[in-house]
Amino acid sequence: MEYTQLTAAELESTKAALDKEFEELKAKNLKLNMARGVLSNDQLDLTMEMLGNLRDKSDCISEAGTDCRNYGLVDGIPEAKRIFAELLCTTPDNIIVGGNSSLNLMYDTIARNMIFGVEEEGSTPWAQQGKIKFLCPSPGYDRHFAICERMGIEMITVDMLDDGPDMDTVEKLVSEDPSIKGIWCVPKYSNPTGVVYSKETIVRMSALKPAAKDFRVFWDDAYIIHSLYDKAAYQIEILDEVKKYGNDNMVYIFTSTSKISFPGSGIAVIASSKHNIDKIKSHMSVQTIGHDKLNQMRHIKYFGSLEGIIKHMERHAAIIAPKFQLVDEVLTRELEGLGIAKWTKPTGGYFISLDVYPGTAKKVYEMMCELGVNLTPAGATFPYRKDPRDQNLRIAPTFPPLDELRQASEALCLCTKRAAVEKLLNA
Amino acid sequence: MEYTQLTAAELESTKAALDKEFEELKAKNLKLNMARGVLSNDQLDLTMEMLGNLRDKSDCISEAGTDCRNYGLVDGIPEAKRIFAELLCTTPDNIIVGGNSSLNLMYDTIARNMIFGVEEEGSTPWAQQGKIKFLCPSPGYDRHFAICERMGIEMITVDMLDDGPDMDTVEKLVSEDPSIKGIWCVPKYSNPTGVVYSKETIVRMSALKPAAKDFRVFWDDAYIIHSLYDKAAYQIEILDEVKKYGNDNMVYIFTSTSKISFPGSGIAVIASSKHNIDKIKSHMSVQTIGHDKLNQMRHIKYFGSLEGIIKHMERHAAIIAPKFQLVDEVLTRELEGLGIAKWTKPTGGYFISLDVYPGTAKKVYEMMCELGVNLTPAGATFPYRKDPRDQNLRIAPTFPPLDELRQASEALCLCTKRAAVEKLLNA
Repeated sequence: MEYTQLTAAELESTKAALDKEFEELKAKNLKLNMARGVLSNDQLDLTMEMLGNLRDKSDCISEAGTDCRNYGLVDGIPEAKRIFAELLCTTPDNIIVGGNSSLNLMYDTIARNMIFGVEEEGSTPWAQQGKIKFLCPSPGYDRHFAICERMGIEMITVDMLDDGPDMDTVEKLVSEDPSIKGIWCVPKYSNPTGVVYSKETIVRMSALKPAAKDFRVFWDDAYIIHSLYDKAAYQIEILDEVKKYGNDNMVYIFTSTSKISFPGSGIAVIASSKHNIDKIKSHMSVQTIGHDKLNQMRHIKYFGSLEGIIKHMERHAAIIAPKFQLVDEVLTRELEGLGIAKWTKPTGGYFISLDVYPGTAKKVYEMMCELGVNLTPAGATFPYRKDPRDQNLRIAPTFPPLDELRQASEALCLCTKRAAVEKLLNA
Repeated sequence: MEYTQLTAAELESTKAALDKEFEELKAKNLKLNMARGVLSNDQLDLTMEMLGNLRDKSDCISEAGTDCRNYGLVDGIPEAKRIFAELLCTTPDNIIVGGNSSLNLMYDTIARNMIFGVEEEGSTPWAQQGKIKFLCPSPGYDRHFAICERMGIEMITVDMLDDGPDMDTVEKLVSEDPSIKGIWCVPKYSNPTGVVYSKETIVRMSALKPAAKDFRVFWDDAYIIHSLYDKAAYQIEILDEVKKYGNDNMVYIFTSTSKISFPGSGIAVIASSKHNIDKIKSHMSVQTIGHDKLNQMRHIKYFGSLEGIIKHMERHAAIIAPKFQLVDEVLTRELEGLGIAKWTKPTGGYFISLDVYPGTAKKVYEMMCELGVNLTPAGATFPYRKDPRDQNLRIAPTFPPLDELRQASEALCLCTKRAAVEKLLNA
C-alpha cells in the first residue's frame, strides 16, 4: 500500500518498525561504499596483460614510423586516431588523442575558450564577455558542474527527461540568451540517469539556433560503448548531423578508455570539426610536448581493433550487469508499490539514479552515513549541489562486491522508507 | 689569423676556397639533423626494462594502499613525491607529480594565473590586468617564449651572462614595473647556453623586490641531474632561499624525467611553497581525474631511489658526452683563432650555444639548409624569434650518431666561415 494512503496511526507504527530495524542495522557497524563510479578489482584485472605488452623497440614504433618513446605526434599516433575515429563514426582528421583524462580535455577546452575565445577567427574570449552561462541538464555529472563553478560560469539547471534534456527549454534559452555559451551532455547512458538521448533529441540539439555565435555543445560520450547487455544503443552521429544545419563547429565530443582499460591510465580523445581540431592542435602544440604515445601503443596492441574493444566491454558487462540487477531487485522488493521512490533501469553506463520522496534525499544521505554506508552526497548531481526537489540520489553499483552491494542497497531502502515516513508524519 | 685582420684580397681568396668547398659538400646531398634536443636510440634503449615492470596487481599498489590502476591521488603517489622531493631538496608537501610533460605544467600554471590570478587570496587574474610582461633571459628556450607569445604576454629580452641572467637589469625592471609578472629561468645547464646559475644569481633572484605582488619566477629545472661528467654542479635550493626574503610563494619549480626515462612518456613535477601547491592541487582536482599513476609506479619500481636515477644518468652521459666533445673538437679545429665565433663548453644539459659572426646567424642557417643539414632556425632562442645581434645558433648534439654529427659539425663550421667572409667583404 502506498505510504501516502496510510493513516497517521499506520504511519506511526510503520515508523516504529523502521526505527527498530534502523537501530539494529546501526549496531552492526557497517562499513560499505556505494559512492564511487569506479571499476571493481575484477574489472581492473581484465586488462593486466596490456601493461606488459611493449617488450622491445619494435613494439614502440608507430605505423607512422615514429618512435613512440621519443617526442612528436602531438595529436596522437595514427593507429589510435583511426580506432577512435571508428568508435565515434568520424574520420581521423576530426580527432586528437590526448592524455589520460577526458575531463582534462574538457577543462582545457573551456580554459582555452576563456582565454582565447572559441575557434572562429576574431572570437572574443569568454572571460572578457562578463557573465556567461552554461545549461546543465540535471541530474547530471558533478565534475562538469565543478568546472563551471570554478570558472565562474553561471549554471542553469534544465530537466533531464527520459529521452534527454528538456529540448523545449534548451531551444528557447539558447536562442534567446547570447550569454549562454555551452551545454553539458552525456548522450549515452547518461550520468547518473542512464538515459540514452533519442534521435529526436540529437537532431534538435544539432539544429539549435544559438543567440551566441560562440555557443558550444560539450558532448561527453563517456559511456559510448559501455552497454550492460547484448546490444549497445545506437545513436546518430552528431558531428554529421550538425552539418545539416550549418552548425559544423558547434560540438566537441569527448571520450576515453578510463572505464575500458584503467581509470587514470587510459587514453582520452576529443573530436570535433576539422576546423576546430586544427585550431585546438595549434594551441596544444604550445601547451605540451605531446601526450603519452607509449600508452597509446599499449592500448592499440592490446585491443587491436574496435572489435577487440567491443569484446573487452562484454567481459566488463559480465562482471557489472549482475550488480545493476541486484540493486534493482532489492529496490523493487523493498520499495515498489510504496509510492515514495522511483529509479532508473539503465542498460549501460555506471549509475542508477534514485528519486526518493521529495524533500528527503538529504535526510536519506544522512541516515546512510549514520549506518556507515558511503553514498554520493544528496545534491551532487545538480549545479551548486542544490537539488531543487531534494529527491535525487546517485547509486554506483560497480565497485563493491555483490554481498556488500546487497547490504548497502537494503540499507538504502530502509533509509528511503524511514525518511519518507518521517516526512509524511511532519507534513 | 683572425678574419677581421685579413685584407680584401685575402678575404676574396678565402671566400673562393670556401665557396669551392661548399659546392663540393652540396654535391654530396647530405641529409643530416642536428636540430632536435632529443634522446638518441641508444639512450632510449637504456630504459626499456621499465616498460615491462608492472606484472601483476601487487606491482600496482602504492605504499599509500591505493590501487594505481584506479582513480585517486591527484597529486601523485607518495613514493614518487618523495623521490622528487629528494631530487629537488624539498619536502613531499611542496610537490605535485603531474602528467608526462613539464611544459604542460608550465602552460597550465600560466593559464591558471591568466584566469584566476596567482595563489594569493583576492589576486586579480593576469588576463584582467591589461598588458602584462615576462622577462626572457636570452638565448633561452623557444617553447617558453611560445607560451608567452600565445598568451599575449609581452616578452622583454634580458641578456644571459656566464653566471645566469643579467641580474642588474632583472632587479631594476622587476622592482620598477608592476606589469612584469614573471621570468623564465633554466637554472642548470641552461637551454641553450649550458650556463649554471651562480650562487649569487640565485640569491639575488630569491631576494627580488617585485613591484608586482603577483610576480612569479618560472624555474624550469629541466636538466637538474643531467650532468655530462663526473660531478653534477651544485646549486643552492631556491625554495629555501626565497623564504629569507619573505618571497615564500614567488617561485614555481618544474622538472621531468623526459630526458631520464622517455620523452613523452616520462613524469613531470611542479614544486612550490606548500601554500601554492595546495591552491594548485585544488584547481587540479577540478581539472583532471588525476595523472597516470601506473606510469609513476613504473618509474619508481625501475629507479628505486634518487641514487638509482643518478646511476642511470651516468649511462646517459656515457652516450652523449662524447658527442658534445666531438662537436667541440670540430669547432675548435675549424674556428678557433679566426675571431668569428665563440661557443659554450657545457658540462651538462642538451645543447651547445654557438655565436657566429654578428649579423650572419640567419645566413649560416640558410647555408646549412642548402647543404641538407637541419639546424634549429636562427632566432629561435630569442623572444619573437628575433636575435637582436643575429648571431646565435643552437646545436643539439644528442640525437645523431657520431659520424653524422661530425659531418654536420664540419658543415656548420664551413657555413660559419663562409657567411663571415661574405659579411666582411660587404662591410
